[in-house]
Amino acid sequence: MKPIAAETQNATLSYEQAGVNYDLIDPLKVSAQRAAAATSGHLAAHGFSEVKASRGESAYVVDVGPFYIASIVECLGSKAIVADEMAALTGRSWYASIAQDTIAMAVNDLITVGATPLVVQAYWAAGGSDWFGDAQRAQALVEGWKRACDVCGVAWGGGETPALAGIVEGGRIDLAASCTGLINPKERLSVGDRLSPGDAIVLLDSSGIHANGLSLARKLVERLPQGWLTPVQPGLSYGEALLAPTVLYSPVTEALWRAGIVPHYCANITGHGWRKLLRHPAAFTYRIHTVPPVTPVLAFIQQHAHQDDREAYSTLNMGAGFALFVEAADAQRTVEIAQSLGIGARVAGIVEAGPKQLLIEPLGIRFGDDDLQLR
Amino acid sequence: MKPIAAETQNATLSYEQAGVNYDLIDPLKVSAQRAAAATSGHLAAHGFSEVKASRGESAYVVDVGPFYIASIVECLGSKAIVADEMAALTGRSWYASIAQDTIAMAVNDLITVGATPLVVQAYWAAGGSDWFGDAQRAQALVEGWKRACDVCGVAWGGGETPALAGIVEGGRIDLAASCTGLINPKERLSVGDRLSPGDAIVLLDSSGIHANGLSLARKLVERLPQGWLTPVQPGLSYGEALLAPTVLYSPVTEALWRAGIVPHYCANITGHGWRKLLRHPAAFTYRIHTVPPVTPVLAFIQQHAHQDDREAYSTLNMGAGFALFVEAADAQRTVEIAQSLGIGARVAGIVEAGPKQLLIEPLGIRFGDDDLQLR
Repeated sequence: MKPIAAETQNATLSYEQAGVNYDLIDPLKVSAQRAAAATSGHLAAHGFSEVKASRGESAYVVDVGPFYIASIVECLGSKAIVADEMAALTGRSWYASIAQDTIAMAVNDLITVGATPLVVQAYWAAGGSDWFGDAQRAQALVEGWKRACDVCGVAWGGGETPALAGIVEGGRIDLAASCTGLINPKERLSVGDRLSPGDAIVLLDSSGIHANGLSLARKLVERLPQGWLTPVQPGLSYGEALLAPTVLYSPVTEALWRAGIVPHYCANITGHGWRKLLRHPAAFTYRIHTVPPVTPVLAFIQQHAHQDDREAYSTLNMGAGFALFVEAADAQRTVEIAQSLGIGARVAGIVEAGPKQLLIEPLGIRFGDDDLQLR
Repeated sequence: MKPIAAETQNATLSYEQAGVNYDLIDPLKVSAQRAAAATSGHLAAHGFSEVKASRGESAYVVDVGPFYIASIVECLGSKAIVADEMAALTGRSWYASIAQDTIAMAVNDLITVGATPLVVQAYWAAGGSDWFGDAQRAQALVEGWKRACDVCGVAWGGGETPALAGIVEGGRIDLAASCTGLINPKERLSVGDRLSPGDAIVLLDSSGIHANGLSLARKLVERLPQGWLTPVQPGLSYGEALLAPTVLYSPVTEALWRAGIVPHYCANITGHGWRKLLRHPAAFTYRIHTVPPVTPVLAFIQQHAHQDDREAYSTLNMGAGFALFVEAADAQRTVEIAQSLGIGARVAGIVEAGPKQLLIEPLGIRFGDDDLQLR
């Protein structure tokens, strides 16, 4: 751990300072999105068509007649580095946890469009064959992956385990998951056309940082007196708290369907924090009257990174991992269904006609249309 | 380029020496395959079931009633390093080529089970945000990806473009693709149950090394007097020859279907070279009477790596990128259909009752059951 000068110690640490520069990535994204959109006509040759509204949503949806197919690939990101650092310090393997995170990244995005996840494929690209020689770690990865599939009721189809010396760093692994699901029956499709003023916003609790904001969290550790082992609360180190696995939300969306509740829209709260609540393309005002308790590790990050609430809520999930926009009459039952599955939930706000903005009233924060450019 | 002692220069270079140790990876693969197989029961809760014979095949297949869904995730591997080295030497970007390779890795596997590829997702994990700042290279990647989707008639659904500093090496990118397709109508399923003695083996030409054996090819460059720029033939450097993009074979399988030809089995010839012809789980003898011309870059590798034919055919595709096992009466038409699409093809052999073995008669090579352990 390098010593840090006092003035640096007290400066605000933003997500950009943590090393992710979206200004460099976004032009490619736009260009790729345009090229991708230009390929959709190919589906017609097979008698199918895309659900155009799914372009720009978290998963891509194709109409194949009797139902829709949704697909996605998602990456864990740099959380594996935290697992490696903590393994070196504690001797424990954290790969069962980050296996769940990886599946959560794919599954929690896939369900936003109303899909039931059916098949997951594993993408485990190691920095060399020797990565797989640590049998305990490899076994933890397999077991955590399997368990997450069991929770989501998804079949693990197979995957790819390349040894990529020279591309992936030695001793590291790049974890990703692809997921294919069905929207069946087709009435379950939720790509935004049903969202209306008066809808309730139900927020499902997160378990911690999930797998977004880890660059910031890793940058911050340089400032902490005991590094990864700095206590967040008695008996819980910063590293361990960060490694709480991401909540898998598909049991909630499946249970909602069985209860006859079809969300009008969903947002998985990942990168860009609460700004993801502005994801829907149309202009609505999202008025939040109740915020969930902030998970201790996120409160700790906000405090030590000297972030004000606006910065923190624009970057981290701050206790809310998934947003369900439902008919107001269904809001309380939605909360109860999530809670019955052991996932904290609350009616947090309401959708209103008005300019595109998110008003987090208890904190006096406003995010406008300019604060989230995803399309 | 480091100087190499003469005795090293003349030693045989095997795939294992090139740094990929399957002995370390395989136990994890077996453990993962077992855990994955144990999740298949989840499909029943959704009213579906897996096609059990697809476990161990190149793509995973689920029966969803009106048709089968196949899915896969595949990685480019280390070919991106060759593209980077050649870009440094020539100033050209080779990312359009390796984009096609990446899609080929997924699509050419997916079609082996009889699927029509429908949707591709891009997984482009860079060693940092700055990777995306090279607009020319990024644009080549986008354009090559789009063009490959056009060739395969597949919709590019979206993808993930993470900046993974600390996991992916600085200046590098980890390219992968996931693909979802349909086997529609269900009669197109080819997971091996139809393969019979008397079937013809049709081999489709490769364009070069494709994307398997690159670790060996990169190791070999250390021995070459002009490195990547060593001529393979007049006007064609080793690096450029290696970067010939992988042939996309899905136009062939789609055209075969339109012509009423359903392959009894397919094998994508990737890692393990011609041993992949032994992929089918049952015991058959595959007798090869005609081998395709060896692509110049592969002949060059064999020569400079001092590999005998057995070693070369057990590692590299040696001119054959894809194998179609078809009814003998369909063999000649299969060849003609491939050729009409600009893909060289030939009737190369026959399936016989007998012990599991591959006999490459023109070369006097025999591979037995022990030479390929994929399941």
